Order: sequence, then C-alpha cells, then structure tokens
Amino acid sequence: MEFVMRPIGVIHSPFTDTKQTPIQPTRSQAIGQVIIHPEFADGLQDVEEFSHIILLYAFHQSEGYSLRVKPFLDDQLHGLFATRHPCRPNPIGLSIVRLLARRDNVLEIEGVDVLDGTPLLDIKPYVPDFDVRTNTHTGWYEVRSRA
Amino acid sequence: MEFVMRPIGVIHSPFTDTKQTPIQPTRSQAIGQVIIHPEFADGLQDVEEFSHIILLYAFHQSEGYSLRVKPFLDDQLHGLFATRHPCRPNPIGLSIVRLLARRDNVLEIEGVDVLDGTPLLDIKPYVPDFDVRTNTHTGWYEVRSRA
Repeated sequence: MEFVMRPIGVIHSPFTDTKQTPIQPTRSQAIGQVIIHPEFADGLQDVEEFSHIILLYAFHQSEGYSLRVKPFLDDQLHGLFATRHPCRPNPIGLSIVRLLARRDNVLEIEGVDVLDGTPLLDIKPYVPDFDVRTNTHTGWYEVRSRA
Repeated sequence: MEFVMRPIGVIHSPFTDTKQTPIQPTRSQAIGQVIIHPEFADGLQDVEEFSHIILLYAFHQSEGYSLRVKPFLDDQLHGLFATRHPCRPNPIGLSIVRLLARRDNVLEIEGVDVLDGTPLLDIKPYVPDFDVRTNTHTGWYEVRSRA
C-alpha cells in the first residue's frame, strides 16, 4: 500500500541552510510566506479567520533515517518516534504558525521554522478544542527543558 | 514532484463506519491500538514516556475532494483548508491521542477518532512547548461552538 503526495504549494522562509533553521516555531519569530498553487487557491476561503494554522510539509532535504536518533535538544539516543527529527520513514513535517494575513493565494506567516522552498502538503486550521492538551508529560524533553 | 508514503503501521479503533466515528479525539474516549510494523518497532523506544502523541495517517477511505466544503460542525461552505474535512488533495489526517501504554510494537491509546484499519504514516511526540498556542481565534468554528 502506498500513498502518493503532491505539493499544493511552497513555503518560503529566511532559512536556506538547515544549520540556521530554528528547531520549532515557538523558538522562531521569523516571517515567511506560503504560496498555494493557483488551482488550490479556492480552498483558502475563510482560512484568514484563523489566527494559527497547521502546516504539513515534506522534509524534502532529508535523506534516509535511523530508528534511534539524538534529537537536536538532547545528547542521548531515543526512538525516532519519540522525537521530531526530520529524517523519518515518511518525511512529513508539522509546524504550527501564526497566520498574519492572506492575499489571494499567498499567506503571510510568523514563526516559520522550515527551509526556504519546502513543499507544502496540507494546511489545517489550528483549533484549541482539538489541538491543545494539558496535563501532559514529555519524557526526555521534560528532563532537558528543566536542565 | 511527488512523495511516496508507505504505512509504518495500522490504527485499530472501535469504528468501522464513518458515520459512527467521532469528529475529533477531544470528543472521543474510545480506546484503540496502534500496531507498528515490526521493522519500525525500534523507533518506539522512550515514546511511552510521553503522555500524548500525534498520529499522522492516511484518510484511506476518502475519495477525491472539493475545495469548498461544509464541515461536520457547520452548515456553511468554507474553503477546504479552513476545515479538517477528510477529503483533501493530500489525504493526511492528524489526531492527538493519549498514550496509555506500550507493549513492544503495540501502543494502547485513548481518544481515537479514526476508522479501524487506518494506515499510520508517522508518530510524533506531543510537546506543549511546540504544539500549544493560546490567544487564538478560530473563525467559523468559534461562531459555531458558541452557538
């Protein structure tokens, strides 16, 4: 079984080198643009009413993967699926960004953390009723972020 | 440009009919299981230290899409990318579920909202520092949820 994904647009950012790229949107105030291919532009109606959107995209520069990795934020090996490492069996990235404005098929976003030219696969509206969880625990990340 | 995605496992749930399936995990307390294909099981190390995980999966029963849709929770047409509708150009679904336990390559989850047999594409740990946004506004959803 396989699923063929084709980009619906492209994400532009100030980052042309993986080493400069912020680790997560909450660590970035960078401004970027999402340009949707014109044939999908009608799907953006009303998206500007949402303050935040979820971008799903392809980690197009990742090659291969390891099932045990050291996350950028830790120095210990963990299972790949316990990390947000970009090299994954299905290289799908997820970022939540602030949506500043829409002009036709162009979205201005804040908090972008991806490489310039990243192929966009999907946009979903961020809805706290669906997407916010409290009373969480976060394993190695919790330990590191307290350090 | 295209990206070929192959399932890394399967999600089991009590739901065999789209009409019975909850609209979002926060509206579900259903128990389910994620079974990772054995060749990816090593990638699960330490995931059990996280209370919540993000499942990315294929909407394998969706066929085609419209760029303007009526969401399940509204009676007005909106742009597809302003909704979480399952029929999308790239049919990737996203659910945040509680992780109850791991036994080898099997994850017990709570709050499952997908069809039984859904092909799993990726698992990411849910990290509030990355994934929680406050001071949001949510357009048509906000209006409907106050109604």
